[in-house]
Amino acid sequence: MNEIIESLYQRKSVRAYEDRAIPEEMKNLILEAAMQAPSAGCQQLYTILDITDQELKEKLAESCDHQPFIAKAPMVLVFCADCKKWYDAYLEAGCEPRKPGVGDLMLSITDTAIAAQNAVVAAESLGIGSCYIGDIMENCEEHRKLLQLPEYVFPVVMLVFGWPTMQQKQRQKPARCDRKHIVHENTYRSMDGEELREMFAHEHKNSTYEEWCSAFCKRKYNSDFSKEMSRSVAKYLESYF
Amino acid sequence: MNEIIESLYQRKSVRAYEDRAIPEEMKNLILEAAMQAPSAGCQQLYTILDITDQELKEKLAESCDHQPFIAKAPMVLVFCADCKKWYDAYLEAGCEPRKPGVGDLMLSITDTAIAAQNAVVAAESLGIGSCYIGDIMENCEEHRKLLQLPEYVFPVVMLVFGWPTMQQKQRQKPARCDRKHIVHENTYRSMDGEELREMFAHEHKNSTYEEWCSAFCKRKYNSDFSKEMSRSVAKYLESYF
Repeated sequence: MNEIIESLYQRKSVRAYEDRAIPEEMKNLILEAAMQAPSAGCQQLYTILDITDQELKEKLAESCDHQPFIAKAPMVLVFCADCKKWYDAYLEAGCEPRKPGVGDLMLSITDTAIAAQNAVVAAESLGIGSCYIGDIMENCEEHRKLLQLPEYVFPVVMLVFGWPTMQQKQRQKPARCDRKHIVHENTYRSMDGEELREMFAHEHKNSTYEEWCSAFCKRKYNSDFSKEMSRSVAKYLESYF
Repeated sequence: MNEIIESLYQRKSVRAYEDRAIPEEMKNLILEAAMQAPSAGCQQLYTILDITDQELKEKLAESCDHQPFIAKAPMVLVFCADCKKWYDAYLEAGCEPRKPGVGDLMLSITDTAIAAQNAVVAAESLGIGSCYIGDIMENCEEHRKLLQLPEYVFPVVMLVFGWPTMQQKQRQKPARCDRKHIVHENTYRSMDGEELREMFAHEHKNSTYEEWCSAFCKRKYNSDFSKEMSRSVAKYLESYF
């Protein structure tokens, strides 16, 4: 295993940071790494918001499921799927572009997440920890207003960065499912009850499958923030239909 | 700049491959790198289809905008956003999960693209080239059938891998837009005509902005495959509403 793969394997989320800034030069290396990521037709279908305003960080920490550590991060980036800038560029050239559709949105979301992950990998290589905040997709109306997002711009992920505390460095990375359950050959294979139980066996050493799974379902999937995400995304989607 | 960031900067798409297999051990390192990527709540909301069947590769090469190089790639992976497996797991545990919604879909698409990019970075570190095929989102009905995708499983990207030919190694990586146009501070800034023209100045050295942009719009954005993508994605979306 080489140094790069080693780094991908080791990387884990970091949610507590030292009180120490990220030098401008490193920040620029990370942003440039994001922009050097593969992109559909090299269109770079995203815009990255660099949140430097402390008040705005604090508002986002609150609106993104009340996670105060967000406001303490020395670097906060919101990666937005951007179907607007090319649309505007076509209009500027006198073309007659169709309105952006859900296909364009999906392609731009993919572009955006790919770029974000390059930022994560670059940061990790510099010793800088990161954490994805998917909750930026919630509260459509509020986030649109806070970040001044126009139509056709969709916030895909927020990424917060900082120097990991010792406790965070020592935290164990959560185990992944076994490859055989994640990788299927040629076609999709629906898993039966037995395989589903086997896949998640490492998740519940001190409880039954039913206990663990019900608690997880209640805490995550059936939670208010999870329902809010689907409501909010549906709202964002309106303009693409 | 360290070796990891260097690798992220250098990576470019590879669409022509040597006639040479990818050893099983390397394939597994790449798959494991994908699975070690950050994931919302460590849920790994994706399933990776490893396309080993030559006939299936050829069908996908055709259905994904007629790109024969896909069928020649020694490794082809389809990364699917999977909202089905957890839903099934909840049912197996006797929970009452709500039906997956568009928020779940977006979260799983993000998870999926992040994992895919780890595969790309890992492959690059081994000297293996890769190319994203977004066209896998097209032709919903056909791809669902070919890959046996059930409801709540959405094909986000196809990734093809192989050893780059000399010509591909020497190919110049397309230039990215300048950072000032991609990174906005705090809030989104709609760009005016002047800035849009400046952003794309590197794209058209031998033609006017209008000529270049109109040709691009016709070839990409207003193309049949682009319209097909939005039709197809809308079809996939039906089950989430």
